[in-house]
Amino acid sequence: MAVRTPDHDPTDPTDQTPADPDVLLHPGWLTDAELDGVRERVPVVYVEAVPVTLDSAGRVSAVGVLLRANSEAVMTRTIVSGRVRYGETIRDALLRHMVTDLGESCGPQLPVSPVPFTVAEYFPMPGISAFVDPRQHAVSLAFIVPVTGLCHPRRDALEVSWLSPAEAADPGLNRDMEGGRGALLRMALASVGALG
Amino acid sequence: MAVRTPDHDPTDPTDQTPADPDVLLHPGWLTDAELDGVRERVPVVYVEAVPVTLDSAGRVSAVGVLLRANSEAVMTRTIVSGRVRYGETIRDALLRHMVTDLGESCGPQLPVSPVPFTVAEYFPMPGISAFVDPRQHAVSLAFIVPVTGLCHPRRDALEVSWLSPAEAADPGLNRDMEGGRGALLRMALASVGALG
Amino acid sequence: MAVRTPDHDPTDPTDQTPADPDVLLHPGWLTDAELDGVRERVPVVYVEAVPVTLDSAGRVSAVGVLLRANSEAVMTRTIVSGRVRYGETIRDALLRHMVTDLGESCGPQLPVSPVPFTVAEYFPMPGISAFVDPRQHAVSLAFIVPVTGLCHPRRDALEVSWLSPAEAADPGLNRDMEGGRGALLRMALASVGALG
Amino acid sequence: MAVRTPDHDPTDPTDQTPADPDVLLHPGWLTDAELDGVRERVPVVYVEAVPVTLDSAGRVSAVGVLLRANSEAVMTRTIVSGRVRYGETIRDALLRHMVTDLGESCGPQLPVSPVPFTVAEYFPMPGISAFVDPRQHAVSLAFIVPVTGLCHPRRDALEVSWLSPAEAADPGLNRDMEGGRGALLRMALASVGALG
Repeated sequence: MAVRTPDHDPTDPTDQTPADPDVLLHPGWLTDAELDGVRERVPVVYVEAVPVTLDSAGRVSAVGVLLRANSEAVMTRTIVSGRVRYGETIRDALLRHMVTDLGESCGPQLPVSPVPFTVAEYFPMPGISAFVDPRQHAVSLAFIVPVTGLCHPRRDALEVSWLSPAEAADPGLNRDMEGGRGALLRMALASVGALG
Repeated sequence: MAVRTPDHDPTDPTDQTPADPDVLLHPGWLTDAELDGVRERVPVVYVEAVPVTLDSAGRVSAVGVLLRANSEAVMTRTIVSGRVRYGETIRDALLRHMVTDLGESCGPQLPVSPVPFTVAEYFPMPGISAFVDPRQHAVSLAFIVPVTGLCHPRRDALEVSWLSPAEAADPGLNRDMEGGRGALLRMALASVGALG
Repeated sequence: MAVRTPDHDPTDPTDQTPADPDVLLHPGWLTDAELDGVRERVPVVYVEAVPVTLDSAGRVSAVGVLLRANSEAVMTRTIVSGRVRYGETIRDALLRHMVTDLGESCGPQLPVSPVPFTVAEYFPMPGISAFVDPRQHAVSLAFIVPVTGLCHPRRDALEVSWLSPAEAADPGLNRDMEGGRGALLRMALASVGALG
Repeated sequence: MAVRTPDHDPTDPTDQTPADPDVLLHPGWLTDAELDGVRERVPVVYVEAVPVTLDSAGRVSAVGVLLRANSEAVMTRTIVSGRVRYGETIRDALLRHMVTDLGESCGPQLPVSPVPFTVAEYFPMPGISAFVDPRQHAVSLAFIVPVTGLCHPRRDALEVSWLSPAEAADPGLNRDMEGGRGALLRMALASVGALG
């Protein structure tokens, strides 16, 4: 049974299915079953990106929020997010997930510094941190990524909404975001001085 | 056969051996063989700590560098470093590795912010980043950790040397540190304004 | 006529009055009139501190908010804030203002890094940034400062309230803080991962 | 007698001379004599920029170092640096000094975050910090600024050299930079993970 996950997408040529011979050639790439096994044993490295547009002075003018169907086919708001593969740099993982979620022509400005604006720790059990992911313990490096091109969502991201910083910080919107990503969005805005 | 690794120490009561029934009770804890399997498939989350002492104004007065025997029994200089376990927060992992390497009474001031001074990406193959680890692809969150107590090395850390910031930045010393940790040490000093 | 300002306090032995001969001896120390002149011509360097207490794991357990009478004798909530003097380091200015506002025994842990969690730009005219100060253009370096001692407000800070991170982020409380410091408080919480 | 200073340039239409009626219209703009008076009394707010070019993955590929004649007509290596004016935002000051030193077409990517990679404290007297400026006490917010356009030095910057990160960190070059800016350059490289 196919399960929606940001880590595997049969329609994505850069994302390998279990039957794909490339998995055999790249032992660091995991089948879905193997990935499930790993997820119960070690923390998984993630990157997350808050896509933004900038005005001419470099200030955030709009924040991109994804509307995506989750595994129960419920539409939820989220941000760009995905696993770092074996042998892949954080920048390459950021670029791959930006392109997968926002399209080839989104024109991301990858961060100059490897230091994220925050490190979000997702645990299967609530209460340990502000972030929850029932599937796994994930350690996620979260970045602001300005885009200069056109964003056309691919994969299971059905829509990108561009919100003003004030709209993106709205408590009502933030509460509806999955896994605590509303808090992450407010932290992103705070890190760029845009949390009014 | 005992293998030196910062992740497993039979003399450490908080570190479980394969035979220990606690491993069965804690499915997230791995045997050495299982850990080796994971290390070939996914990036492993690490924390690293540069122990420092502070003067009364909060400036770094000394930097703690460990002298440790590596797997070939060669003495090398390094810093506090170790894996984050499944279900463990970054702060708890930092505390556990500080205590294991520097003793129960080292009195670490854990970081207020979850943001590291840098993210060091270790790859088995040189040339991808400044950091190399033949055993694995590790994504390491590196922190400055001030200590206020007495440091008594435990485990395989045989000695802690306390160096002035200028001595710690010495290119000769830095070159001898394993895996590129000399660069990490200079980045640590730079992040606190102590790279003269 | 005495004017309330964080920069001058006749009861503070470290703060010089215009008549004080120390001003003559320290040409970098300004009379109130001279300071007013400077304030109309150049940006003034400020430091601000959000006092916090930490739990044993280094997480923020409480946030100190000052209740202070402003120049119209209206009580407002604010944080530790004050000017950096000529020849004074940022750390020394932070220490001086912490001690002036919270007492000699507050036990501040000054920041290891000179990098603030944000730079707040205060302008006399609203709309340029999120921060307003009718008296001046101030460039303020804002830090989280953990305290380990007893806090006894001095000077014109009449009370320190210790709030939980959730209470400190409350929009109602934040709106009442002068000059936009409610936003600054939320940015402080975000920088340490405590903005839920 | 005209004195070289990054704060005043008669050939720069955006930089006002004492005789210029704009000074009268803008009371926040200072004559050279007034500025000298202020410099002996309060810390002056500065911005500094390390211009860099990036490769397609966002990594620093080259670092721009200016060759400039100082007040004794000695050529020294430095970076983009200048005062923040009354009423001017940090981003606007960064943009103004980038354009003045590197030309209108340099295409600077202004920082998304207002947080500098370090705060350099310059004092007239050596020994207080790593940075010295005989003219003043300056508090300088230092940023990495990627450029995407052509850089044509204007003003008294006679030349821009583009160095590899390794060349820019060379101790010999760093020692020759004025006021401790060699240390600042190494801190800039460290902040982006490019200090090998």
